[in-house]
Amino acid sequence: MSTLAFAIASRINALSFAKLPPQAVHWARLAIADNIAAGLGGCREPSVGILLSLAEMNGARGSCTVLGRTETLPALEAAFVNGAASHALDFDDCSPTMDGHPSVPMVPALLALAEELDRSGGDVIAAYVAGYETETAIASAINPDHGQRGWHPTATIGIFGAAAACAKLLNLDDKAFAGALSIAASSAAGLRANSGTMTKHLHAAQSNRNGLQAALLAQKGFTANLDALEHELGYFSAYAGRPVDPQVVLARLDHGFDILNPGIAIKQYPCCAFTHPAIDAVLKLRAHDDVSCDNVASIKVELSPKRMRNVNRPDPRTDTDAKFSTHYVVALALKNGGVRLSDFEGSAFLDPNLRELMQRVELRPHDGALAEATVSITGKDGRTHREVALRDMGRGPDDPMSDAEFRDKFLDCAAASLTGHEASALFDRLMSLERARSIRPVLAAARGQQAHAPTFVQATA
Amino acid sequence: MSTLAFAIASRINALSFAKLPPQAVHWARLAIADNIAAGLGGCREPSVGILLSLAEMNGARGSCTVLGRTETLPALEAAFVNGAASHALDFDDCSPTMDGHPSVPMVPALLALAEELDRSGGDVIAAYVAGYETETAIASAINPDHGQRGWHPTATIGIFGAAAACAKLLNLDDKAFAGALSIAASSAAGLRANSGTMTKHLHAAQSNRNGLQAALLAQKGFTANLDALEHELGYFSAYAGRPVDPQVVLARLDHGFDILNPGIAIKQYPCCAFTHPAIDAVLKLRAHDDVSCDNVASIKVELSPKRMRNVNRPDPRTDTDAKFSTHYVVALALKNGGVRLSDFEGSAFLDPNLRELMQRVELRPHDGALAEATVSITGKDGRTHREVALRDMGRGPDDPMSDAEFRDKFLDCAAASLTGHEASALFDRLMSLERARSIRPVLAAARGQQAHAPTFVQATA
Repeated sequence: MSTLAFAIASRINALSFAKLPPQAVHWARLAIADNIAAGLGGCREPSVGILLSLAEMNGARGSCTVLGRTETLPALEAAFVNGAASHALDFDDCSPTMDGHPSVPMVPALLALAEELDRSGGDVIAAYVAGYETETAIASAINPDHGQRGWHPTATIGIFGAAAACAKLLNLDDKAFAGALSIAASSAAGLRANSGTMTKHLHAAQSNRNGLQAALLAQKGFTANLDALEHELGYFSAYAGRPVDPQVVLARLDHGFDILNPGIAIKQYPCCAFTHPAIDAVLKLRAHDDVSCDNVASIKVELSPKRMRNVNRPDPRTDTDAKFSTHYVVALALKNGGVRLSDFEGSAFLDPNLRELMQRVELRPHDGALAEATVSITGKDGRTHREVALRDMGRGPDDPMSDAEFRDKFLDCAAASLTGHEASALFDRLMSLERARSIRPVLAAARGQQAHAPTFVQATA
Repeated sequence: MSTLAFAIASRINALSFAKLPPQAVHWARLAIADNIAAGLGGCREPSVGILLSLAEMNGARGSCTVLGRTETLPALEAAFVNGAASHALDFDDCSPTMDGHPSVPMVPALLALAEELDRSGGDVIAAYVAGYETETAIASAINPDHGQRGWHPTATIGIFGAAAACAKLLNLDDKAFAGALSIAASSAAGLRANSGTMTKHLHAAQSNRNGLQAALLAQKGFTANLDALEHELGYFSAYAGRPVDPQVVLARLDHGFDILNPGIAIKQYPCCAFTHPAIDAVLKLRAHDDVSCDNVASIKVELSPKRMRNVNRPDPRTDTDAKFSTHYVVALALKNGGVRLSDFEGSAFLDPNLRELMQRVELRPHDGALAEATVSITGKDGRTHREVALRDMGRGPDDPMSDAEFRDKFLDCAAASLTGHEASALFDRLMSLERARSIRPVLAAARGQQAHAPTFVQATA
């Protein structure tokens, strides 16, 4: 059999934990931990409460972890609810190859299945890499125009990651693995038109649920046409609007690990990625003795015009708006030495001290690189300090967060759902995930003991 | 608010059972009955057994009917499983506007929700018309190229029917109704590349589940962008590949009922619709005294070349193949006076008497209308009788089945799951559906008492 799905399956099935480069294991571990962090941070969002009420209305009973909750659900429902939770804050990792988020469409499904099957940390890491390499190989062949046609690549490409990761964990043979991909091709959905609404969270929920479903169906002998990707009435035709040479996908898989190059970009700050270089530059400047809130006369931020139009918001009116306000996040960075989740809760963005500082921030366009930010801070003494920072979608292999910075992000996210002690213990378990003989106690540690009062929206029907 | 979804919602919300033309009630009743018949016929297919095992693995508990089974499921799962069952035989109704099947993507969801909410037959009929008019209005704006790009319109357009029918039954206000359509736009999926496999049945399952889900989420306040249809990164961009003028959709809704013109085409025979005109012509010829199997020398069938290439199969090798063999179905019609489901079970297509008759059938192309078939039967006495028949996708308002013919189809389908007595009683209830104060006893009558041994595939995980 020589279809693309079959050829992908045979390559991915040749992967194993023992054969992974140590750096691939390292990044898989970080990505899984980061995704759980994002879920612990997002699990109390109203969208997640509604999806949970739907699962409850569906009478679902099972034993898989719901992040930050003591209730448990069957694997398909846990994949669904945790998928939305891990995307709700838009604080999960990014991939330049995906033109979207590589982990959130599949990690919740993978973890739920692994918990159901009682699999090891090493199995989970190998399956993660399987999913990651599958989705990025397909993405490399249909981006960037895929997203420009209206699709939300996180979901519409990520579903192949979910199907592949779950197929790998289920040890499906090549034919069934190809079946999982071909069934998934008939379940891909999610429109960028719904960005900024709860339905964007649903996209991640659906990718996890339907990717896991595809793998389970294939395991049970459910049939599909194994050329559903490259068929003239198949995925590429419908979702790319053009024929795609299967060899482009396979060449990518044969070329080396996308997880190492270009790799995963982890978001350090819980706000629009376009504002991150400016935050970095401010934090570097803040190290100077004479740059502090008290003696700043003006802050000039230069950005590419393309990015500037999205993040030039001198007067944010909502917490979501504040995530796209360079003025606000630059002021936060200068005042607090960082940007944290609590800065986007309630009316934090109305803090008078920050508002006063924001009035001194000015944005200007530059003609430099897209991801570059230049920040010039002029003190009351007339002296100007200037820093340039460059960052695309987050911090990747070329510029990783330090262990302390990553831990800091994890604990900040987890604080919404776990006590500090619970969060620290979970972090330590995740940093040695490959040594866990079973994923179950790891995930049990991500349930929390309801240290925080539940704020879920109740079902109305 | 002036988005397309909102404008559709306000028009559809203005519909009510009391204001429906009697002919619209008539066709809605037939379509619902026909869809239940298709599900009773298809519910023992292996694909349905696998999906049912997935629902069971999901720990789902609820009280909605699974066609032909005594087990019950929650509404989302019943919509899912019955969706596949009603499409598994490809014997459900068609719509030229949809370029696909109008009822199967929504009737199972609508019935499950109505059963959950204990709604009346009249409510179900009004909601059916709401779903039907919504999906065909959208279809009219994006067909025929939508399907030619790879999409399976039954699912990718039908999901709007499911969302609208369920939104109507839930009495959602215009804004929430528009939300349901906008959420559904982010859940549309199904590729024609998977035709001929179980995944095609999954498309109908997904349309029902996700359409119902969209309506329930909207009811609970889940947000979406209400311009998700016409947004530059929305449904039309992604699924039509071109901008669509919202006025085209609204003009269609304002013009009159699609359910009356062109209306629904109900399949009379359980085989490829391209063979139906030839069957009709043979049945007319069979009325002649001197046309019978015994004295036939030759049977010449003339079809359009476009259709002929799909159904020119003188030697079918499988039961599915037999559904596309004009030779086989023409022989059946001449010998038995009809074509029934049992003719495609087991090795019926190898019957020596039929094989002998099939050898006398010859296909030739004509240059007439696409849907026209001419059959010339020459007797052993040298006399030739000739009949022309014309039929597109089934029997619609211009050429309806008689009450007896429709009952015949219903009972033939139901025989796979119900006793003759049960099937007759259910048929009578469905033919007066608008007088049912509750849908519950009607659907309870579609469960059967397991008169037939279950043949479901067992779960393996």
